[in-house]
Amino acid sequence: MVKLKGFQKLTLTDQALQSWFNALQIGKPNVSAVSLKDASGRVLSEDLIAREDLPRFDKSAMDGYALKTADSVGASQFKPATFQLTENQEITSKQVRQVWTGNPIPKGANAVVMLENTRKYEGKIEVWSQLAPGDNVSKKGEDIKKGDVIAEAGVRLNPYHIGLAAALGYSQLKVVEKPKIAILATGNELAEVGTLLSGDLIYDSNKIMLSAVCRELGAETTDYGIAKDNVDEIADKIQKALKTQDAVITTGGTSVGGLDLVPDAVNKLGKPGVIVHGVALRPAMPTAIAMLEGKPVLILSGNPVAAIIGFEVFGRPMVCRLLGMSKTEPRPMLKATLARRVASALGRKTYVRVRVTLKGGEFYAEPVSAKGSGSISTLTQSNGFVIVPENREGVSEGETVIVHMFGSLEVAD
Amino acid sequence: MVKLKGFQKLTLTDQALQSWFNALQIGKPNVSAVSLKDASGRVLSEDLIAREDLPRFDKSAMDGYALKTADSVGASQFKPATFQLTENQEITSKQVRQVWTGNPIPKGANAVVMLENTRKYEGKIEVWSQLAPGDNVSKKGEDIKKGDVIAEAGVRLNPYHIGLAAALGYSQLKVVEKPKIAILATGNELAEVGTLLSGDLIYDSNKIMLSAVCRELGAETTDYGIAKDNVDEIADKIQKALKTQDAVITTGGTSVGGLDLVPDAVNKLGKPGVIVHGVALRPAMPTAIAMLEGKPVLILSGNPVAAIIGFEVFGRPMVCRLLGMSKTEPRPMLKATLARRVASALGRKTYVRVRVTLKGGEFYAEPVSAKGSGSISTLTQSNGFVIVPENREGVSEGETVIVHMFGSLEVAD
Repeated sequence: MVKLKGFQKLTLTDQALQSWFNALQIGKPNVSAVSLKDASGRVLSEDLIAREDLPRFDKSAMDGYALKTADSVGASQFKPATFQLTENQEITSKQVRQVWTGNPIPKGANAVVMLENTRKYEGKIEVWSQLAPGDNVSKKGEDIKKGDVIAEAGVRLNPYHIGLAAALGYSQLKVVEKPKIAILATGNELAEVGTLLSGDLIYDSNKIMLSAVCRELGAETTDYGIAKDNVDEIADKIQKALKTQDAVITTGGTSVGGLDLVPDAVNKLGKPGVIVHGVALRPAMPTAIAMLEGKPVLILSGNPVAAIIGFEVFGRPMVCRLLGMSKTEPRPMLKATLARRVASALGRKTYVRVRVTLKGGEFYAEPVSAKGSGSISTLTQSNGFVIVPENREGVSEGETVIVHMFGSLEVAD
Repeated sequence: MVKLKGFQKLTLTDQALQSWFNALQIGKPNVSAVSLKDASGRVLSEDLIAREDLPRFDKSAMDGYALKTADSVGASQFKPATFQLTENQEITSKQVRQVWTGNPIPKGANAVVMLENTRKYEGKIEVWSQLAPGDNVSKKGEDIKKGDVIAEAGVRLNPYHIGLAAALGYSQLKVVEKPKIAILATGNELAEVGTLLSGDLIYDSNKIMLSAVCRELGAETTDYGIAKDNVDEIADKIQKALKTQDAVITTGGTSVGGLDLVPDAVNKLGKPGVIVHGVALRPAMPTAIAMLEGKPVLILSGNPVAAIIGFEVFGRPMVCRLLGMSKTEPRPMLKATLARRVASALGRKTYVRVRVTLKGGEFYAEPVSAKGSGSISTLTQSNGFVIVPENREGVSEGETVIVHMFGSLEVAD
């Protein structure tokens, strides 16, 4: 294991995450009822149960005519059976009633003949096929039985869940309240976007980026501004955030053997404070995970890419836990052929940024390299991450890799 | 080609889409400026140009000491070069200044030695390695040059674009205004969700589902209610919608050889009206595409699954065009092994619903079957579509298929 000043040792990311979640006291999330219209993308807080059967009644699965099957025995195109058309709610022998897909089956009928297998002739209906009971009929409760679990607690609702809930008559759903996350940046060199920038300052880009990834997952974020490189100021802001927020994410003020202002500030505020500082992760080695008042505090690097990778490894699982999910929601994944060798350090998990293209039916992942590997532009030029595990030293050109996608796939014509 | 009453022939989906887009007069979308905070997920309306270099100045890529490389010639762990520590803005010969990652390089320095390759000893700094000019320095403009295109018009902004825009000092971005889409259901059998349901009525589930998929893509939807099975009532509602909306989507009132109330209503309203009615698509054959007043009108089946598949094939491309994209944004995709044979009809594009699981490093797609293939529950139980092309008659078990994912991947432990 690489020896570095300031870190006794680097902790494996899986171990770090485990220690963190063992320590954290994340309770059952709060619940709110939202209208169906606002429920898509939210996380279900309790199992959604069918309150009735679907279909609600026997209905036609086709456009055609409802009839008694006994009347169709032996019917064929060469020997049609002839029926009387009725509009009655109930049919009797040798009668048919026209039904469109979804219409209830009229009383007395036990099957539906498809329109294609019939002909209107001299005011009567000719049927060209023999039907069996239940043909082209969707039975009551065939899709869903009253009491069935439609979707489990912890599921992120998509438009189809919403549609199914509507079909079952739900107008509201109980979802997990959005966890509240404080975002704080530290650094004397930082200026807020929108302020006039002078001299050696740079614009803070991390708060807004971290806020966007949190909100994408379904959290609510509050901007706690920029703290100067001063332990007391940092501690004050974190303490204030803990009063109302469910978690705190900081960026900056943690390093490899250098200034560790944020870990120091967190340790000053209480126990256990920092749980792990320094992880076997590239980039994002200086990431620290902490707990104060039972709440998670995630201490990310000031380097934008390291902050994003640190969030990916620790922040996503944290937000998913706060949302009441039992597992971390995976990003979309795919397998691709690596277009060029990538290097990685043995003993560290390495996040490689790649651009995936679908070409001729095959997925190719081109590593995005840049002189400044800490530049956000390596993320905007990519659409996915390849995660090289700790026991690998690089991945060869032509190897198949799993890519975790965060951007739109490029489809070549 | 299958001959059906009511349809002279079924049009291939690609041809239908082509005819539609050739006819449509979709202009340049309207533009609005939104704050960075609200820009994630929106579509960029013009190329985003770097307004300055990134980095803004030569900066340190490491935690360490800035120095003149000439002073490090021949240095090694066994023969350290010794330096004086200074806090000055400019260094002179045999001086170093401490720098953290991201700090500007002090005047006079041309490289940075990593902290790991140094030692503080008796108030001086020992340097253990020989440096070359530029070592551990990120040069001004190395990541991005002023004038570079950061993201192209038509790109959907993700958190990383937002971060990069922030780093460049943007506090607002110009995005495409949300297209306005009217959603209308037709059918005497339908009741609005939230109303008391009686007799043979069913709850309308399609409007809210279609609205959710449109909003997921970045459109704004307006609910135009439920029209009775009456051409005039349907025509009135569509005409009203066209006054303020950019597109109209209807569900119900189009069938295979049966009632075609919506196509009839649309044709009553003007030219060209219906462009294609009846597509070689399973499910969703009765889908019709139309144009009124230069605006797209998408006529979907009343069957929920057929409505969703019709939207997938025609609605997604339509919304992407309205958003100013030159191509349809693909869903996340992956290749999976089909776990069970699926049937499909030669001559029709078939959308098969599957549930994809990642197990032992391999993706498996299990077709989701149900007695009622029109049931929304087949969508909530799936997480992706396999599209079987027109020239295939089924796909065998064990074949590799491309899955278009709409739900979260299931990761087996």
